[in-house]
Amino acid sequence: EDEAYFSSYADYGIHGDMLKDRVRTESYRDCMYKNPEVFRGKVVLDVGCGTGILSMFAARAGASQVFAVDQAEIIYQAMGIIRENNLEDKITFIKGRLEDVTLPVEKVDIIMSEWMGYFLLFESMLDTVVVARDQFLAPGGKVYPDKCSVWLVGVADSELWQQAVGFWDDVYGFSMSCMKSGAVEDAHVEVVQADKVITEPCKVKDLDLNTCQLTDLEFTSNFTLRCCGDGELTSIVGYFNIGFEAGCSRQVHFSTSPSDPPTHWKQTVFHLETPIAVSDGMTIDGRIQVKKVIGDPRSLQVKIRVGLRSQMYQMR
Amino acid sequence: EDEAYFSSYADYGIHGDMLKDRVRTESYRDCMYKNPEVFRGKVVLDVGCGTGILSMFAARAGASQVFAVDQAEIIYQAMGIIRENNLEDKITFIKGRLEDVTLPVEKVDIIMSEWMGYFLLFESMLDTVVVARDQFLAPGGKVYPDKCSVWLVGVADSELWQQAVGFWDDVYGFSMSCMKSGAVEDAHVEVVQADKVITEPCKVKDLDLNTCQLTDLEFTSNFTLRCCGDGELTSIVGYFNIGFEAGCSRQVHFSTSPSDPPTHWKQTVFHLETPIAVSDGMTIDGRIQVKKVIGDPRSLQVKIRVGLRSQMYQMR
Repeated sequence: EDEAYFSSYADYGIHGDMLKDRVRTESYRDCMYKNPEVFRGKVVLDVGCGTGILSMFAARAGASQVFAVDQAEIIYQAMGIIRENNLEDKITFIKGRLEDVTLPVEKVDIIMSEWMGYFLLFESMLDTVVVARDQFLAPGGKVYPDKCSVWLVGVADSELWQQAVGFWDDVYGFSMSCMKSGAVEDAHVEVVQADKVITEPCKVKDLDLNTCQLTDLEFTSNFTLRCCGDGELTSIVGYFNIGFEAGCSRQVHFSTSPSDPPTHWKQTVFHLETPIAVSDGMTIDGRIQVKKVIGDPRSLQVKIRVGLRSQMYQMR
Repeated sequence: EDEAYFSSYADYGIHGDMLKDRVRTESYRDCMYKNPEVFRGKVVLDVGCGTGILSMFAARAGASQVFAVDQAEIIYQAMGIIRENNLEDKITFIKGRLEDVTLPVEKVDIIMSEWMGYFLLFESMLDTVVVARDQFLAPGGKVYPDKCSVWLVGVADSELWQQAVGFWDDVYGFSMSCMKSGAVEDAHVEVVQADKVITEPCKVKDLDLNTCQLTDLEFTSNFTLRCCGDGELTSIVGYFNIGFEAGCSRQVHFSTSPSDPPTHWKQTVFHLETPIAVSDGMTIDGRIQVKKVIGDPRSLQVKIRVGLRSQMYQMR
């Protein structure tokens, strides 16, 4: 009976944290509220609707009908939220995997989704959005956000590196050095201070949601990082930029770079096992390879070569 | 082949965070280093050894033999760590569930374990330590830590409450009030600032590891919180105190209260659905009930009555 007392598990904290991320949520809002001509009278599909916030923005921006799909229990809360806001006539919920559901319409004009994971692609729903587009988007329809890019930048943050890697050399008087290689393999999601950046950023991947394919999740790219200071390069930091562009007279953009206000995505830190001394004007050549983990399609592994040294990373 | 490249998953980050918690780790260290007469020549069992840090402290404090048990993959790293520190002759690792393993000795003199979870008992290994004690501890042997207590204190933190509960009333212009009851049910692990405390603390549970029973995990206790200021009581905050006492000439204690330096356990915050106005000198009577969740023995649910209002909480 106590079990039944509890509301179905709906990850209140996680949804709260995402909603409280103003950079994220206001970008979606601004895209819709500032471009009402794009949304007025349109049929919108919200992929992974969560609490329904994007569906409500779309309805308020003038969409004639919104279909909101989520397979998680939170959708039952979203149904209550929509009633609270008297939007039941505009927004229809469908619980299930996007890949399995049937919509009451054959095609939609616009697909909205907040599918991005850490480092854009970790545990992301990009696959699902691409499936939704290919199955449900009318010719000439639009996916938002559409312009996404992945960037790397070099960082000299000896404190962050020491906490994650150097720490293991002396733990209360004992050596735990054998932990270092495993600790380096873990990509860290952390807020990197802008003043630790020691290179120009370099773009390693462009993704246009209106045209990309499932295979775009895996990619290999060479990169060159141009140093803008002297110091010890301790880590390569990954982040992404997002744009709401296609057909919008007032485009909206945000960045998860260390130089921009932090978001719940923070940055993704790939520590070097051994820091590299760098100097102003020097360039560092490298290569990044991003692959799915066999047997765990939502996970990714990343191989980064910096100079002559290669390192595998994963997010767990 | 890439799969094989990675070290076995060993939760480097979590073990790092626990080791970096100096309040926690130095308390264990101090108990052993400052009471060498307790440990010299003794046989020690380390329950849930992780990286092996407690086993190494015990060996350095003079234990003749340490048996270190863990069922997690981290034990393979611990084996490497012990070799790095030339302690293979003192420390023997046994991988498996404590409840299933056979030790090379019939009884041990001392059981060391860092078994504590959030709010002491959430997801804790207390059951396992009690089983280890009943099965392996020699008559007159000791368990460390041994003196544990659970405390409640009242807090007036409208900002924390607003973030977790009030937030849902207006989310970018939409009402999500139906999320509030679910949001209140989630106990929050957060660092509470000492200056938000608005009542005296009240102890609701004493546990002596040398005598407690499995049934002690579930308890009911009345409490009285005496207000030491005027304000709005927004939340009941739970924390625990730990003592290394039995037979120690130099006892060691630490507390996870809001008035002490924060640990990785932080505090556990139980928000009230509706804050209560309180004034200096007033007393608040209540009752707390802690029960296991059927089907998930590591989880607990907590029912707290404050005045006339009862609220169920769970940690997820």
